[in-house]
Amino acid sequence: MIVVMKSTSSDADVQHVLSFLQNHGLSGHLSQGVERTVIGVLGAVGPSGAPGSLGGINPSIGEALEGLPNVEDVVRVSKPYKLASREFHPEDTIVEVPSACVEGGIVRIGGKEVVMMAGPCTVETEKQLMTTAAAVRKEGAVILRGGAFKPSTSPYGFRGLGEEGLKLLAKARDEFGMAIITEVMTPSDVAMVCEYADILQIGTRNMQNYMLLDEVGRTRKPVVIKRGMSATFEEWLLAAEYILSQGNRNVILCERGIRTFEKATRNTMDISAFPLLKRLSHLPVLSDPSQGTGRRDIVGPLSLASVAAGADALLVEVHPNPDEALKDGAQSITIPQFRELMPQLHAVAGAIGRSVITK
Amino acid sequence: MIVVMKSTSSDADVQHVLSFLQNHGLSGHLSQGVERTVIGVLGAVGPSGAPGSLGGINPSIGEALEGLPNVEDVVRVSKPYKLASREFHPEDTIVEVPSACVEGGIVRIGGKEVVMMAGPCTVETEKQLMTTAAAVRKEGAVILRGGAFKPSTSPYGFRGLGEEGLKLLAKARDEFGMAIITEVMTPSDVAMVCEYADILQIGTRNMQNYMLLDEVGRTRKPVVIKRGMSATFEEWLLAAEYILSQGNRNVILCERGIRTFEKATRNTMDISAFPLLKRLSHLPVLSDPSQGTGRRDIVGPLSLASVAAGADALLVEVHPNPDEALKDGAQSITIPQFRELMPQLHAVAGAIGRSVITK
Amino acid sequence: MIVVMKSTSSDADVQHVLSFLQNHGLSGHLSQGVERTVIGVLGAVGPSGAPGSLGGINPSIGEALEGLPNVEDVVRVSKPYKLASREFHPEDTIVEVPSACVEGGIVRIGGKEVVMMAGPCTVETEKQLMTTAAAVRKEGAVILRGGAFKPSTSPYGFRGLGEEGLKLLAKARDEFGMAIITEVMTPSDVAMVCEYADILQIGTRNMQNYMLLDEVGRTRKPVVIKRGMSATFEEWLLAAEYILSQGNRNVILCERGIRTFEKATRNTMDISAFPLLKRLSHLPVLSDPSQGTGRRDIVGPLSLASVAAGADALLVEVHPNPDEALKDGAQSITIPQFRELMPQLHAVAGAIGRSVITK
Amino acid sequence: MIVVMKSTSSDADVQHVLSFLQNHGLSGHLSQGVERTVIGVLGAVGPSGAPGSLGGINPSIGEALEGLPNVEDVVRVSKPYKLASREFHPEDTIVEVPSACVEGGIVRIGGKEVVMMAGPCTVETEKQLMTTAAAVRKEGAVILRGGAFKPSTSPYGFRGLGEEGLKLLAKARDEFGMAIITEVMTPSDVAMVCEYADILQIGTRNMQNYMLLDEVGRTRKPVVIKRGMSATFEEWLLAAEYILSQGNRNVILCERGIRTFEKATRNTMDISAFPLLKRLSHLPVLSDPSQGTGRRDIVGPLSLASVAAGADALLVEVHPNPDEALKDGAQSITIPQFRELMPQLHAVAGAIGRSVITK
Repeated sequence: MIVVMKSTSSDADVQHVLSFLQNHGLSGHLSQGVERTVIGVLGAVGPSGAPGSLGGINPSIGEALEGLPNVEDVVRVSKPYKLASREFHPEDTIVEVPSACVEGGIVRIGGKEVVMMAGPCTVETEKQLMTTAAAVRKEGAVILRGGAFKPSTSPYGFRGLGEEGLKLLAKARDEFGMAIITEVMTPSDVAMVCEYADILQIGTRNMQNYMLLDEVGRTRKPVVIKRGMSATFEEWLLAAEYILSQGNRNVILCERGIRTFEKATRNTMDISAFPLLKRLSHLPVLSDPSQGTGRRDIVGPLSLASVAAGADALLVEVHPNPDEALKDGAQSITIPQFRELMPQLHAVAGAIGRSVITK
Repeated sequence: MIVVMKSTSSDADVQHVLSFLQNHGLSGHLSQGVERTVIGVLGAVGPSGAPGSLGGINPSIGEALEGLPNVEDVVRVSKPYKLASREFHPEDTIVEVPSACVEGGIVRIGGKEVVMMAGPCTVETEKQLMTTAAAVRKEGAVILRGGAFKPSTSPYGFRGLGEEGLKLLAKARDEFGMAIITEVMTPSDVAMVCEYADILQIGTRNMQNYMLLDEVGRTRKPVVIKRGMSATFEEWLLAAEYILSQGNRNVILCERGIRTFEKATRNTMDISAFPLLKRLSHLPVLSDPSQGTGRRDIVGPLSLASVAAGADALLVEVHPNPDEALKDGAQSITIPQFRELMPQLHAVAGAIGRSVITK
Repeated sequence: MIVVMKSTSSDADVQHVLSFLQNHGLSGHLSQGVERTVIGVLGAVGPSGAPGSLGGINPSIGEALEGLPNVEDVVRVSKPYKLASREFHPEDTIVEVPSACVEGGIVRIGGKEVVMMAGPCTVETEKQLMTTAAAVRKEGAVILRGGAFKPSTSPYGFRGLGEEGLKLLAKARDEFGMAIITEVMTPSDVAMVCEYADILQIGTRNMQNYMLLDEVGRTRKPVVIKRGMSATFEEWLLAAEYILSQGNRNVILCERGIRTFEKATRNTMDISAFPLLKRLSHLPVLSDPSQGTGRRDIVGPLSLASVAAGADALLVEVHPNPDEALKDGAQSITIPQFRELMPQLHAVAGAIGRSVITK
Repeated sequence: MIVVMKSTSSDADVQHVLSFLQNHGLSGHLSQGVERTVIGVLGAVGPSGAPGSLGGINPSIGEALEGLPNVEDVVRVSKPYKLASREFHPEDTIVEVPSACVEGGIVRIGGKEVVMMAGPCTVETEKQLMTTAAAVRKEGAVILRGGAFKPSTSPYGFRGLGEEGLKLLAKARDEFGMAIITEVMTPSDVAMVCEYADILQIGTRNMQNYMLLDEVGRTRKPVVIKRGMSATFEEWLLAAEYILSQGNRNVILCERGIRTFEKATRNTMDISAFPLLKRLSHLPVLSDPSQGTGRRDIVGPLSLASVAAGADALLVEVHPNPDEALKDGAQSITIPQFRELMPQLHAVAGAIGRSVITK
């Protein structure tokens, strides 16, 4: 249940609602926006007296709340995720990312324009990064991806250049005017990564690393949260809810394929995520066809399919020489392949009444 | 290994190859086409003397075969499926279906034009079928779908009208000039269904019903083989190989979603099937977004995504009043939804350089 | 809903109930047992007038039925499967199989005694079958398994000796007094397989081959129905319901592992099937650890685990020389391994208060 | 590749090996045990000059290493996990946990005796914890489980009592002499949890939280690492390798069920984990049938099955009043159910030649 206050409501009105909730054994989650204040009614005290567990809420409570001073509306949210639900926030959320390479200096994710994010899987060397950045920017990518902290299934695998990699990414931003997206893996790194990155990325293995979600939720940076390897939409939206409930509303969902029995691809892209999440939620949805397929030869078709189905942005791995990549070369497309993809993308976006932002 | 005979080869040449194979403990699978004869080298006699098990083949055998009279080429096929593989048949297979409603009277599946197949999940009544057929034909569908024999998870569910349903389908064909696709569930029904249908459909539960595959393989009707609920591409292509190896080359693969942990959709469409199967195989690939999602509200976007990724045809469930459908109403789109979908489909097909055949 | 008639009820009473149902748009499924007659209330006529679809049943119908003459009880069955449910049949079903090698000539599956079925995956030669049968009988197996019709993923794989294999099985039965279990793959083979087999086996790929289920349902032979590769318990019990609803009550469920992401084993045995199916259903439950693991080295431990969890019987592949087996040698245990397993099995069965029948 | 030094080797000999590796572009991972020193040869410098990526190792390197002074043996480990593999460490690892309630004060996990760990899912109140601890100790449990930090799919769910919960656990240890196992969720909590716990638990969602694995690897506390929800054995053993490669050898694997399509149980226990991991690895393997089934009514049978298949220990959720539990009540057994389970467990352990340690 969500209580929406009138725009003319005072602090005292809000306090009144919170006290009412407390008196009925519930707790309120305050979300003070620029235009309106909403209070999430988030649960009851548990049977054994322990704090915070979610109990059922009596419907009559809703009616009583509607009668309190300066309450505009009480919205019943039927889903376990509240702030992430379309019911709570009927308009599309548009996440703004500062990006010097476009007119106005802001890229908007979740609006009419499709956004291309591209770059190497992993930052390896300055030359590799700069070559790739120059090439993808030239074709129209406006956000640069690159991993500095890399999860590796084996402790003996390459785990990234760390802060050195972040510095190279910042250098590329200075040079090409592209915003930077990069992964953060543990709460204690969040502050440091925030110094360099424009968008934080939560990887698939960390979708349910709740302390990390809490920590990025306390920043105001845009956060891309990748779907867990075998997570359902509901679990994924609940992970997004962790971030939202800490006050960070700049959350972007990223479909990167799920684990299935198919062995010919690394993962199976769940293309239904794009149209369906736009119905369940107001958050922008991003497609990662590189992780989603693990195969360079079909990254292009899956990119087109994602956009045809409603993806707001693409995250594509590009490498100047993928066969020598330190990580995931098989799924990185070459620069010529990227050059071929962009005009196809413009055509498909056009076919469904959208366009691709490139400048 | 596949032995391709020269077009000038005689029966004696072919016999020569077969004898050579037998003398080396192998068996040959003869495929006598109009233009050329090919012999699949299909395996060795097993260690215990039992016939037919697949043993390893000595590479020197290949060289010796190349030297036999009127052998044009010896193709090594690395996949377990042979006749279905792109290595064996580098050009796209185009399956021709007689359909009076198009110019020339033939619909070609697997060529440049995208083909729309639509109609009710299940034939319920003459009125329901005719209303739907009229509506989908008007918007450009050229093939009519409709189930007369229906698999039902429960023995108490509706199992279809049987031959009565086939007769109604034939009537719709007469009236609208559309070709008919309908399911056949058991070997003893194949002859009867062939009397009415232009395309036979093998359902997901029967993908590995080998006696049924053998039986439709002995006909020359086009056969759509749906992917098993949790089958891999390799298992699916091996099922197609059953049909092909009986001599029926008119095989179409149909992606209809696989079982995953996601509960918000009935199945998860594996969109990578379209570009990837076109690489692994020469067979046309069809998309069934109705079964693939189970949700009317996203059938449209998934149709567009399928075509963007390379699907050769679509199979869409349409019902004049889906909420009253006897079966699978939740996944059938309405006639107005179908009307909306077609122009979008033309646009997306155009964006990737294809068109949709409608007349 | 199930109507239980009093033991003193007459044919006229039964007819009365059936007419009542018909008058209310329902159909009755008659099950005339030795001690009592029950009538399954199995569904309503569909909205469009088509026969047989399952509609909701008004609860007031139940009350009215209770008032009819000589109706003892009306049982509401909440599950979609009815005759297979524990609610319908609270006592354990015990399936009797004639087997000359045991005292009294009858093996009972589903009672206190655990039953060992063993033999080769596939009947290859008379020598292989007789050697294996002699060995497993000596150690206490009372039922002999062996495939004459074999599903093969590839059309070029070994598909079994067919009727020749059945004849060898019959010969082994004559020699060792063991009952025979063997697979039947298509409806037109059912009559022939029934001539030789004591238990029919429906393989995992055919769990939803409904015409085959109907056909074995029309016999009175015991039928083992294997779980589909990724079927749920509910789908599996509905498949059993197909057989039961044709009047054959001799149904045994067989857990043979499900498909998961684990690659180190061929399938993943779902051991919870044993205790849970005994709660959901009254049917006996069999364990196939050979298919369930695909690895000879852990067939033993999984056999013990199955019995510890409540399996009523085991189906184990044994081969005199597994590395030369025509099919599935990797999952067949050797004769010495079988010899080692049997005393462990006696010990574990004893630990949970059961015994293993051997003579 | 693993280099085993002679017991008489000096620091200089070790240094010699490390230098040799460095000169050949490899790195060495030093593991200085009490009795012998081993050096894991862990990878090459990547093609682009970045450090640490795993390259192929020339076999001739192995031969050269064998010739260096005081090298006893060079072991080629074929698996991607090295220190976790049975090849590297042929004897069973036995993890010792101080536990005042048993003779000698040490519980050994991985030896002949089966170990019962039991207690509430979540520490709720002192009374709940003490009641449960007293009851399970009385029946023979020697280790007490209880969550103080709880992962919750929803941010509005109960997340545990935190350090307050740890203090209650410590109090229970003082009172009943049982060792304590409890979960740690983030690197910054490791030091604090170590102050209270005898065994650290890594939950299923954190199996690939690599910074957390590194951090617990730097302690010398026993660590139970649960299998990820859809992890393979290989991924799981690689996660264990993270801990081992930091020098902590006290690692215990815990099978807690994997995600499958079955809806009747929360997860599907993969019982093959017990015999198979004992072949692949030397680490002890623990079974969690509570998480593994999610159903109180089958926790008992799955406990017995786990032990029959070779589990070294059990982790069972017990609650004095499960229907009022704050978390996961459905999978907690009652105290009377626990009382019933223990003698059955003794019987099954006895049947396979093991016993259950209780004092």
